[in-house]
Amino acid sequence: MKPHIAWMSALVLAAAAMPLAQSAPVTATDSLSDWNDGAAKRAIVDFVQTTTDPSSSRFVPPAERVAVFDQDGTLWVEHPIYAQLVYCLDRVPALAKTRPQLASEEPFKTVLTANRAAIASLSSQDLLKIVAATLTGMSVEQFQGEVKSWLATAVDPRWKRPYTQLTYLPMQELLKYLRANGYRTYIVTGGGQDFVRVYAEQTYGIPPEQVVGSAGSSSYHYDQSGKPMLTKEPKLLLNDDSTGKPEGIQLMIGRRPYAAFGNSSGDSQMLEYTRAGEGARLAMLVLHDDAHREYAYGPAQGLPDTKVGRFPQELYDRAKKSGWIVISMKDDWRRVFSPEQ
Amino acid sequence: MKPHIAWMSALVLAAAAMPLAQSAPVTATDSLSDWNDGAAKRAIVDFVQTTTDPSSSRFVPPAERVAVFDQDGTLWVEHPIYAQLVYCLDRVPALAKTRPQLASEEPFKTVLTANRAAIASLSSQDLLKIVAATLTGMSVEQFQGEVKSWLATAVDPRWKRPYTQLTYLPMQELLKYLRANGYRTYIVTGGGQDFVRVYAEQTYGIPPEQVVGSAGSSSYHYDQSGKPMLTKEPKLLLNDDSTGKPEGIQLMIGRRPYAAFGNSSGDSQMLEYTRAGEGARLAMLVLHDDAHREYAYGPAQGLPDTKVGRFPQELYDRAKKSGWIVISMKDDWRRVFSPEQ
Repeated sequence: MKPHIAWMSALVLAAAAMPLAQSAPVTATDSLSDWNDGAAKRAIVDFVQTTTDPSSSRFVPPAERVAVFDQDGTLWVEHPIYAQLVYCLDRVPALAKTRPQLASEEPFKTVLTANRAAIASLSSQDLLKIVAATLTGMSVEQFQGEVKSWLATAVDPRWKRPYTQLTYLPMQELLKYLRANGYRTYIVTGGGQDFVRVYAEQTYGIPPEQVVGSAGSSSYHYDQSGKPMLTKEPKLLLNDDSTGKPEGIQLMIGRRPYAAFGNSSGDSQMLEYTRAGEGARLAMLVLHDDAHREYAYGPAQGLPDTKVGRFPQELYDRAKKSGWIVISMKDDWRRVFSPEQ
Repeated sequence: MKPHIAWMSALVLAAAAMPLAQSAPVTATDSLSDWNDGAAKRAIVDFVQTTTDPSSSRFVPPAERVAVFDQDGTLWVEHPIYAQLVYCLDRVPALAKTRPQLASEEPFKTVLTANRAAIASLSSQDLLKIVAATLTGMSVEQFQGEVKSWLATAVDPRWKRPYTQLTYLPMQELLKYLRANGYRTYIVTGGGQDFVRVYAEQTYGIPPEQVVGSAGSSSYHYDQSGKPMLTKEPKLLLNDDSTGKPEGIQLMIGRRPYAAFGNSSGDSQMLEYTRAGEGARLAMLVLHDDAHREYAYGPAQGLPDTKVGRFPQELYDRAKKSGWIVISMKDDWRRVFSPEQ
């Protein structure tokens, strides 16, 4: 089985130069204080009130309260390219130090030139090689350490802030609001399960066991001292994108969610699977229509097209027809990011 | 990848005729009241006290408190054959009604004769066909319904009680004791993940998302009315036995456990992986040395050999050498089963 890399299949490497967002500290007045009043906020509050009211016919027992969130573009910034792919490219120089022969092998040679245009023109096949070389072949603990080190120093090129600070404040509020009401919040991402697990607990309050993502196998064996270890293998078990999202939910959670949040076509199966359950089921999609504070892409509603996190008009129309709520980043969110510390 | 059936690979079909266990109701005086005083009970209490005492150097933060339990032979009876295999054989007549051509096809033809000796001589290849036909090819919900119906009526041939009543009382106490001390209890079984999930919540208080087992893929598609559904496919993603247990723990939980409980060689990798972590780590193995109240098999310590749940002398010696605790069913457990209601 060949490794699949859903989270980079539609890659664009040219970062748009956009004005820096201005945000002023705002005092929280309620638990969804960074949501403007409107249909999106109302849908969230109605859903939670209905499903947690024991007198409601649509009451959901606490054990069944599961809410699932896509990550890239739903909980944090995915443009111009997925953070995990930046990680993979950034790892190449260190990798070439431990395996010097890579310096003369493509596509590693091109990545080492740091020539952005040349890197941007790498084929999917090239990127697959980079992904396999940087995400597999080491112990689980070594990988975790490498990701942690990278996260501590890497910064987003536009905001010059660590990636883990570029989560959406209203979505962070939503995670906490749902948890305060007995919901267990899961990430269900096309990104790498092991990658996201490294920071999800600290960044979102979501523990490793509640991160479902594209997952490779590991192999159990012994190191030279006879100590058992798990090595990450380049064999894909779960491609957690599109139909893989409900399949991954079944594999890892074993319950149909009551609420699902996404931002692109790859989330639509997760949303329709959630909504196909009985009782109150909430499905929401973040529309990136805020070029000033974040990015604007669709191509729904006349927004510019994109290869990363496409939200086509067809998805928009379907959402409207199916009772899925479209969150307008521009209109529904009071702030997008936390103020800089 | 061919379906793997770890939980039936060492099948024996001849049920031993043994005297019915007598058990009188006992009033619980402490939370481990069905454990006799001894090294096993002391090891459990010491482990929990040490890891939950904030002043201890071996304190474990609540988020990291994970305990993993094998199921067959550790939490409930596995002799003379695994309950799940009984289920598969019992399903054949119903299957033959919906697919009449099976009645003339082997190995289904033999199973339909209800001739125990003939069934007992079926090959692994035959059993694989039965397993694939009865565990896959239907929707997740249909499968859950079929297992529920079976559990409601099937009884163990020796005790004439439903399988879900033949869980070990001291292990039920242990699950509750660990949970009362902030541990999340997981099942990590070579049995089918979807099968065990059907009853684990009601039987053990372990929710579906905390059941890790041998798992096949599912496929997401639409029924004739256009409603989304997940169909169970005969493609194995995780063979959750032996090295597959730590691999499954990494895939599904993403944390190394602090306590692990098993009863056979197939659990040894899970126990050594658990013990290889830093700090206090508890590893325990149930030895079935109680032919009167349950079964006696090893072949460790001169007990009769078996093909189901082997506990060889090598494993016993290793446990003693490595600080793993062997639980003697005969000596350490005050009662084995709950009294009949």
